[in-house]
Amino acid sequence: MNTRGVVTVTLNPALDMTGAMGELKPGLVNLIGSSNLNPGGKGVNVAKVLAELGAKVTVTGFLGDENQDPFAHLFEQKGITDRFVRVAGASRINVKLVEESGRVTDLNFPGVTVCDEDLDAFEATLNELAEENDLFVIAGSLPGGVSPAMLASWIEMLRAKGKKVLFDSSNAALAEGLKVAPWLVKPNDEELSQWAGKELESESDLLATGEALAQTGIDNVVISRGAEGVLWLRDGQWLQSQPPRMQVVSTVGAGDTLVAGMCWAELNQWDRDASLSFATALSALAVTQVNVGVEDITDVEALQREINVKQLKQD
Amino acid sequence: MNTRGVVTVTLNPALDMTGAMGELKPGLVNLIGSSNLNPGGKGVNVAKVLAELGAKVTVTGFLGDENQDPFAHLFEQKGITDRFVRVAGASRINVKLVEESGRVTDLNFPGVTVCDEDLDAFEATLNELAEENDLFVIAGSLPGGVSPAMLASWIEMLRAKGKKVLFDSSNAALAEGLKVAPWLVKPNDEELSQWAGKELESESDLLATGEALAQTGIDNVVISRGAEGVLWLRDGQWLQSQPPRMQVVSTVGAGDTLVAGMCWAELNQWDRDASLSFATALSALAVTQVNVGVEDITDVEALQREINVKQLKQD
Repeated sequence: MNTRGVVTVTLNPALDMTGAMGELKPGLVNLIGSSNLNPGGKGVNVAKVLAELGAKVTVTGFLGDENQDPFAHLFEQKGITDRFVRVAGASRINVKLVEESGRVTDLNFPGVTVCDEDLDAFEATLNELAEENDLFVIAGSLPGGVSPAMLASWIEMLRAKGKKVLFDSSNAALAEGLKVAPWLVKPNDEELSQWAGKELESESDLLATGEALAQTGIDNVVISRGAEGVLWLRDGQWLQSQPPRMQVVSTVGAGDTLVAGMCWAELNQWDRDASLSFATALSALAVTQVNVGVEDITDVEALQREINVKQLKQD
Repeated sequence: MNTRGVVTVTLNPALDMTGAMGELKPGLVNLIGSSNLNPGGKGVNVAKVLAELGAKVTVTGFLGDENQDPFAHLFEQKGITDRFVRVAGASRINVKLVEESGRVTDLNFPGVTVCDEDLDAFEATLNELAEENDLFVIAGSLPGGVSPAMLASWIEMLRAKGKKVLFDSSNAALAEGLKVAPWLVKPNDEELSQWAGKELESESDLLATGEALAQTGIDNVVISRGAEGVLWLRDGQWLQSQPPRMQVVSTVGAGDTLVAGMCWAELNQWDRDASLSFATALSALAVTQVNVGVEDITDVEALQREINVKQLKQD
């Protein structure tokens, strides 16, 4: 165990509201049979997994004051320090309607819009948290009022203070964040292809793109490839892990769990093989469960022993 | 103005979540353009209107602790005393999807289930509130764990203490509550017909049924007839009011507003004509606005002057 803390930043958290129902009938009154509310958003998911692993976690970002309860409950329950800036309005609500047939309909409600005062409060909080923490996970999308350039400036500010930033986003936010060289990034094939501006047709294309990304000053390029495992480039050396075939229940949060695993490995200063096999096992187990979280650490450790990590030969 | 307080009881509050969208496409990811969250439930609506009129209002009932924020905000904003018993889980969420075409799809999520401890806490609260208040509005449906018989026992308890109970519910809860003779009930045609167990084919059928209801010991039978106005039976005398034709925007909460109007009239000890014309005007204006509430009291007073209240000739 270690005593270093980690901060996860979720700029645009979401409340996931899942309902089970018969058949969705547009234009009518539909009764939902059972439902649950789950606080989510990439950084919140990472925080939950890290806290369950035993990390000292602080969360920040922007949280709508109209529907913050489920978040506050989660943080209290998991012993996570809550430093979210409260913003007027409701955080995004993502409704997922699961019909008996298995068909799923998503209704993604808009989130809050952040104002200048909120931005000031967040920057002050981030600066304060940088006094006591060295690892920062910044993950997920941006709310209204936060530009990709602002996100990049926060990564740069943390970098300038010597902090390690693990960064996971998409689209314009990802593109802008990659420009300022976070310590670790976790793109998938498609995101790498977007960054490269071309189709990646072979594994060697993929590796070359990862290497080009590392050339920009990013210390760790972690490529999540779903069932095909994880590729990790550090100091010019690629490691590859391959999990066993899993019974997939839900892939929601698997990527966040991978980031949490890499973060936990770094907190514990594990060697590379142990780090990658652990993070891969943690993420592989995540797809076998409905919710994000560590259900049983002994399962993770058992699976970790089955995971082979190999170095890829360099050209 | 008066200094007597009123308590509204909402056993099964609901959070109304309305979203505007293009076309609802089942099985796909749908983006909601704009949305709002509104705390609702009949008793909460009545409390809101009463508070806006200037009443000293206390609210109680059961509130899910996972999504209580919008309720707590409303109560704070309106100066309403919050004595809701907090219950594990989320209060009902009623999602209303309004498409560009005007088509509306309702998704009614289930609410909390109340346990024995919650019931004990609620009964203790109700008893305590009966020390300081004489008027109680009990309105709306029942959550899991609350039977119609329990509801009836609470009305009886308040009656035994000499309290005036204004009661508005439906289905089994309404049927059971009517048996214990609340001080005022507000059925519509259909509910009266259900109570009578037969079709009400003429106005004289309707009046006869209202009179039969009053015979069971109910002091005030108020029948809301929408655009056709309100009928009110008290001490064997029917009064009838007729509002002018209104531009209907939303009938949501019009019935709750009528109850609030009758309650406010009773708090002020107005005479019968003034009471009915005020409550009718308040409720008629409610259909011209999207949200429940008193937007401008001078509009209510102006409309009240246009409303003719007449005594129905007795047979």
